[in-house]
Amino acid sequence: MSHPQVLFPQTTFTGPSLLQARRETIQQVTVKAQLKKLKETGQYECFNLKWQPIYDDKSRWPSPPPVYWDSDVAKWIEGACYMLTEQYDAEIDAAVRELVHMIRDAQQEDGYIDVYFTVIEPGKRWTNLRDQHELYNAGHLMEAALAHSNYYKNNLLIDVIHKYIELIRQVFGPGKDQIHGYPGHPEIELALARFYSATGNQDAYDLAQYFIEERGNPTGQNGMTYYEWEREQRGDSPWKRPDCYPYHPGLWYSQAHLPILQQKTIEGHAVRALYLFTGVANLISLDELGIKSFAGKHQYLEALRTLWNNMVDKKMYLTGGIGSMMQWEGFGIDYFLPQGSDEGGCYNETCASIGVMMLAERLLHVELNSKYADVMELCLYNAVMTAMSLGGNAFTYVNQLASSEKDKNVRAAWFDTSCCPPNVSRLFGSLGGYLWDYGGRGQEIFVNVHLYTTATVSFQVDEHAVVLAQKSNWPWEGNVIFRLEAPPSANTTIRLRIPAWAGKRFTLTPTLDSATIENGYLVLPPSYTSDNRAFTIEVLGFEPRYLSPHPYTNQHTLTLARGPLIYCVEDVDNPWEQNHFRNVGLSIGTPVSEEERVIEEMGERYVGLRVAGWVRNVDHWSQAEPGREPGSSIGAVVPKEAKELLFIPYYLRANRGGKGHMRVGLLNG
Amino acid sequence: MSHPQVLFPQTTFTGPSLLQARRETIQQVTVKAQLKKLKETGQYECFNLKWQPIYDDKSRWPSPPPVYWDSDVAKWIEGACYMLTEQYDAEIDAAVRELVHMIRDAQQEDGYIDVYFTVIEPGKRWTNLRDQHELYNAGHLMEAALAHSNYYKNNLLIDVIHKYIELIRQVFGPGKDQIHGYPGHPEIELALARFYSATGNQDAYDLAQYFIEERGNPTGQNGMTYYEWEREQRGDSPWKRPDCYPYHPGLWYSQAHLPILQQKTIEGHAVRALYLFTGVANLISLDELGIKSFAGKHQYLEALRTLWNNMVDKKMYLTGGIGSMMQWEGFGIDYFLPQGSDEGGCYNETCASIGVMMLAERLLHVELNSKYADVMELCLYNAVMTAMSLGGNAFTYVNQLASSEKDKNVRAAWFDTSCCPPNVSRLFGSLGGYLWDYGGRGQEIFVNVHLYTTATVSFQVDEHAVVLAQKSNWPWEGNVIFRLEAPPSANTTIRLRIPAWAGKRFTLTPTLDSATIENGYLVLPPSYTSDNRAFTIEVLGFEPRYLSPHPYTNQHTLTLARGPLIYCVEDVDNPWEQNHFRNVGLSIGTPVSEEERVIEEMGERYVGLRVAGWVRNVDHWSQAEPGREPGSSIGAVVPKEAKELLFIPYYLRANRGGKGHMRVGLLNG
Repeated sequence: MSHPQVLFPQTTFTGPSLLQARRETIQQVTVKAQLKKLKETGQYECFNLKWQPIYDDKSRWPSPPPVYWDSDVAKWIEGACYMLTEQYDAEIDAAVRELVHMIRDAQQEDGYIDVYFTVIEPGKRWTNLRDQHELYNAGHLMEAALAHSNYYKNNLLIDVIHKYIELIRQVFGPGKDQIHGYPGHPEIELALARFYSATGNQDAYDLAQYFIEERGNPTGQNGMTYYEWEREQRGDSPWKRPDCYPYHPGLWYSQAHLPILQQKTIEGHAVRALYLFTGVANLISLDELGIKSFAGKHQYLEALRTLWNNMVDKKMYLTGGIGSMMQWEGFGIDYFLPQGSDEGGCYNETCASIGVMMLAERLLHVELNSKYADVMELCLYNAVMTAMSLGGNAFTYVNQLASSEKDKNVRAAWFDTSCCPPNVSRLFGSLGGYLWDYGGRGQEIFVNVHLYTTATVSFQVDEHAVVLAQKSNWPWEGNVIFRLEAPPSANTTIRLRIPAWAGKRFTLTPTLDSATIENGYLVLPPSYTSDNRAFTIEVLGFEPRYLSPHPYTNQHTLTLARGPLIYCVEDVDNPWEQNHFRNVGLSIGTPVSEEERVIEEMGERYVGLRVAGWVRNVDHWSQAEPGREPGSSIGAVVPKEAKELLFIPYYLRANRGGKGHMRVGLLNG
Repeated sequence: MSHPQVLFPQTTFTGPSLLQARRETIQQVTVKAQLKKLKETGQYECFNLKWQPIYDDKSRWPSPPPVYWDSDVAKWIEGACYMLTEQYDAEIDAAVRELVHMIRDAQQEDGYIDVYFTVIEPGKRWTNLRDQHELYNAGHLMEAALAHSNYYKNNLLIDVIHKYIELIRQVFGPGKDQIHGYPGHPEIELALARFYSATGNQDAYDLAQYFIEERGNPTGQNGMTYYEWEREQRGDSPWKRPDCYPYHPGLWYSQAHLPILQQKTIEGHAVRALYLFTGVANLISLDELGIKSFAGKHQYLEALRTLWNNMVDKKMYLTGGIGSMMQWEGFGIDYFLPQGSDEGGCYNETCASIGVMMLAERLLHVELNSKYADVMELCLYNAVMTAMSLGGNAFTYVNQLASSEKDKNVRAAWFDTSCCPPNVSRLFGSLGGYLWDYGGRGQEIFVNVHLYTTATVSFQVDEHAVVLAQKSNWPWEGNVIFRLEAPPSANTTIRLRIPAWAGKRFTLTPTLDSATIENGYLVLPPSYTSDNRAFTIEVLGFEPRYLSPHPYTNQHTLTLARGPLIYCVEDVDNPWEQNHFRNVGLSIGTPVSEEERVIEEMGERYVGLRVAGWVRNVDHWSQAEPGREPGSSIGAVVPKEAKELLFIPYYLRANRGGKGHMRVGLLNG
C-alpha cells in the first residue's frame, strides 16, 4: 500500500536541493534538539507512569498539556525512525529503544495505554471523547509503531497496538453495550487505515470505518448526538465548554455537527478536519487500490471534493495556510482571510498545512489531478517550511501573513502544546514518499511525478525493476532532467505535473508532438519513454509574478511569487519600516528584479526580489483631533512616497533577527 | 438639572422638519403599535405577577426574554409620558395608569420589584448579577417614574422607587454584610443619578457612585472579582458561560475586567458600555453644575475622554453605528469594521447608538466641544433614525452597512428582546432636550446650539425669560434663521455648532468681524446678540462628498454623504443588482448630481444622489476550476463595467420593498 510513510525508503535524495537541506538539518539538529526538549519537559519520562509535579496544575481545562504528551512522544519516535532509516545515530537509536520499552511497560493489563487516564485521572477513561485525546494519542502510537517496525523489523510496538486495538474495538461500535462515539480529535482514523493495510488487522479497519460513518450522527447514542449524551453523563451544563468553543454545543469544532456526507463547507478546528478527511481518503484509496472494498466510496469522495474545493477557494491563504480563527484554531466564514491578528485573525497552524499535504497525497492516489499536487507543493514550500528555522531548532506554531506589535514575526524553541515541531520532522523524514506515485501491473508501469527536486526512486513491479531519477535546481529553476531505467519489456508511462502557476508553459526535450496534458499532468507514453531514457522538462513561470487573493476577501493586496514560492518583506531587509508594513503597497505591473542572495552563516542561497513600492501617508487620520468623527471626508486620496522594497521567500522569514516586522500581502494601488 | 428627559417640554418643534415628521409618526403610530405588541406578547400583563405559559420555556439560558420584560414596559411608559406631554391621547393615558397600578401592586413587602425573580425564580434574587437584569430593570423603572411624575404630577411611581432604592441600598455597598456587586447590564447608574438630581434621594446618589467605583475591582468580594465570587456561590464551573461570552470568565463583556479608571479601550457589549459611561458622565456633570461634589471627577472625565476617542476613532462605523461583533453585540478589536455579517461582522444595535447620543449629550454639559455634538448628530440621523420604518411600525435591531443573503435589508414589527423599538420612542419623545444646552446665572445667559432644526426653546434664568427660535430645512439645507427674545438687561451668549463636515465653512448674517470659533462653536457674544435679535447662519458643506473609513479598517471603500446624512444604495433604485452590491464601486472625484425625490404614499421628501459607478467582473475567479489554488496570479487587474447608481439616505433604507440588497461603502477604485 502506497503510503509515503512506508514507501519513502524507495526514494533517495541524490543531491543538494532546498528540500534535502532541510532534511539534513532535521537529521543533524532537529530530532536531537526535540529529544532534548522532550527530556526537559518530562514528556520523555511520561510513559514510566510516575507522578510529575506538572500533573498538579489544574489551571487548564479540559486539556492540560500532559493530555497529549503521548502523541508528542509518538510523533518524535515516528520522525526518529524515518531519520534512522537514512542515517544511523546511536543516541537517537538508544532513545527510541528506551521509549519503546517504557511504552510496552505502560500498557495496562487489558491493553489500555494512555498516560493521562492511567496516572492523573485513572477513573475517567472514555468519559470525555469530545475534549480529551485518548484516541488521538492511540492513533499517533499506531503511526509510531508502523515506523518503528519498518526500521527495527520487530513487533515490539506493533504488538502493543494489536492489543490496544482489540480493547478499543470492544469498547466502541454499534453494539448495544458499546460506546457509539468517535474521537474529539480525529487522527486515529487515518492511523487505523494504515495499520490495517500494513498488518491486515480487521478490527483496525472496522474501527476506522465506524468512527468515520458514525461521526455527526444526530441520534447515534440514546437518540442524541454522542457528545451531548456523554456530557449529560458527566453531569455538565450544556453551557460549560472549553474556551475554544465560542458557542455551545460547538459540535462543528470537531466536525461532528453533521454526518460527514452532509458537510458542504469545511468547519472547525483545522488540524482535526484535515486529519479526519485524510482518514476518509485512506478508506477510499484502499478501495481504489483493490485492497478493501468501501461501500460508501463514491459518496465520500464526492464529499471530500466539495470540502477540498471550499477550503482551497474560500478558506486558504496564498501561502497554503488554513485556519483564520485563532480561538478555535480553525476555519472562519468563507473568504474571511485577514493577514494578522491585529486585522481579526490568521492562525494557520503548521500541523494544519501538513494535514493538507497528507490529504492531497491521498487524493492523488484516488484521482490524479494536479490541483491536489499544486496545493501540496504550495503548503510544503510556504506554510510548512516557514515553520522551522534554518538552524532547525526554532519553530512557529502559528503562521501569520503579517506581524503586529502583539504577534511579532518570531520563533520559539518549543511550545506547551508541541504538536508542530515533531510533525515537521516526520513529514520531512517521509518526504520521499510524497514526490511521486508509482506502480503498475504486469508490464504496464507508471510514475506520476508530483514534486520536482533531485531524487531517485527504485521500485519493482512484478519482475520489473524500475529506477527513475530526477535532477533539478527546484524551486529556483524549472529545468528538470529525468533518467529512466526499466527493462525493455516494460511499458512505462510517466506523468509530469505542469503547475497551475506555469500556465501550461513548458518545454520537453526531446519533443513529443502528440503530447497531451491530462488533469494537469503531461503524459509521456511508453513509446516516448522507451525511445528516450533521458529527457528534460523545463517548466516555465519562474519569472516573478503578482498574486491577489479572491476579491471577496476584501484584502485588496498584492503579493509577489516566483515559481512555487510566496514572498514576503521583512524589516531586516527594509530597516526603515516601523509599522509592520501596514502602510506599504505595490503597483501592479511594476518591474521586479531578481537578486541572487546568500545567508552566509547558513550557506543558504535564495533569490531575492527587488521592486519599487510605496508607503502611504495616513497623517490626515493620525493628526485629526481624537474622537472627532469616524472616517474622513478627504475622499481617500492618500499621498504616497516611493520606496524600494526587497522581498524574500516566506519560508525564510524570522531567521535573521530584526524587529519582527513582516508581511506577505501589500496594499494594491 | 439639565437632563433632556426633564427639559424637553421647554422646547417646541414649531414647524415641519425631518425630526418632527418622525416625532409625529411615533406619536400617532409607534407608541400605540408598541402598546399593541406589549399586549400580544404578555408583557403588558407581566406586573400582575400571574404565571404565563412562556415562563415554562427554559430553552434560553441565562436570560429568557421575560427577564427583561420589566424594562420593556418601563421604557414604553417613559416614551408614552413624553408623548402625552405634547399631545393627550386617552388610550395611552389609560394604559399608563393601568400599568402604574399594576406595578405598584407588584412591589413586594420589602420594596423589591422584579417580575422574573418574583414569579419565575422567586428564591434567586441577586444571585446572578453578571447575567441577570434586576438592576437594569430597576433603572428603567426609575426613568419611567421620573417621566411619569413629570407628566402626571403625582408620586404614584416615584414612591415605588424610593422604597425600592431603600432596599437596594441595604443590599449593596461596602459594608460587611452587603453585596459588593454591580449590575451585569449597567443602566441603573445613569437612572440613579437622574433620580437623585430630581428628588434629592441620597441613597440613589450613593448607590450610583458605589456601582461605578466598585466595578471591575479585582479583589472586591472576598478577595475576588465579584462576578467570579458569585459564580462560585452558585456552584457553577468557571467554563459554564452564556453563548455571548466567547471565553471564560468574560468580564470584559460587561466592562468589569478592570476598574473603569484603568480601561483604555472600549470593550464588550456596546449598550452596556454606553449606558455605564453615561452614568459616569452623569456624576461628573452633577459636580460640574455644582449640584453634588464627586471626588473622582477629573480622573473619570479623563477616562471617558480616552474611551470616547477609542470608540469614535477605531470602533465606530461611518453611520455612527458601534459594535462590529454579533456574538457579544459589542466592540471588536481596533479598526475591525466589516460592513456585513458575510464579511465577519457589523452588529450596530440601535440602542447602542442611542447610548452614544446619551453620552455625548452629557459630555456636552461637562466640556463643550462640537466633536461630541457632531457624533450625536451622526448617530441621530443615521444609525438611530434608520432603525424605524417611515410608517413607524417596523424596526431594525441590527444596523448593518451591507446586506447579505443571510441578513437581508429588512425590518420586523417586534423582537424577542425588544429593547430597541421603545428606546427610539423615548429618544424622539425627549429629543427637544438634545437640541441645545442653556442656562446661566444672574444676567449672564447662554445657549449652546447643538442640533439644527425648526424649534423654539423658552426658559427662565432668575428673572430673565428667554426665547430662542431656530428655523431651517435641516438636514437638506444649511440655512438656519434664529430669533432671540430676552430682556435688554440680559447678556446672552449664543454658541452655534459648526459641524466638522462643514470644514469651518459658514456665513453669518449680519456679519461679526471678531467672530471666534471655540471648540467647534461659533461664539456670538452678548454685544452681537443684543444688536441682532434676528440672525442667520448658513452652514456650508451640503454638496455631496466622498467619505472613507480609516485606512487601517482595510475597507478600501467610498461612501457618499451630504451634510449630516450618510447615503446607501438599495436594489429598489438599482434593480439590476443581484449580489448585495458586493462588486460595485465608485471612483473618487466622479461628479455627483442631486435629485429631489419623494416617496408619494408617505409624503417623504429627500435628496437622492446620482453618480456613475462601476461593477467589477470577478469571472476570472468564478470560472476557475474549483479547488485549484487560493488567489490568482492574474495580478488583480479586474475588468469593470460602468453603471449609473442612485443613492438614498441610509435612514430611508428598507422602506420600499425590493430584494433586500443594500450597501453603504462601495469599492474604491
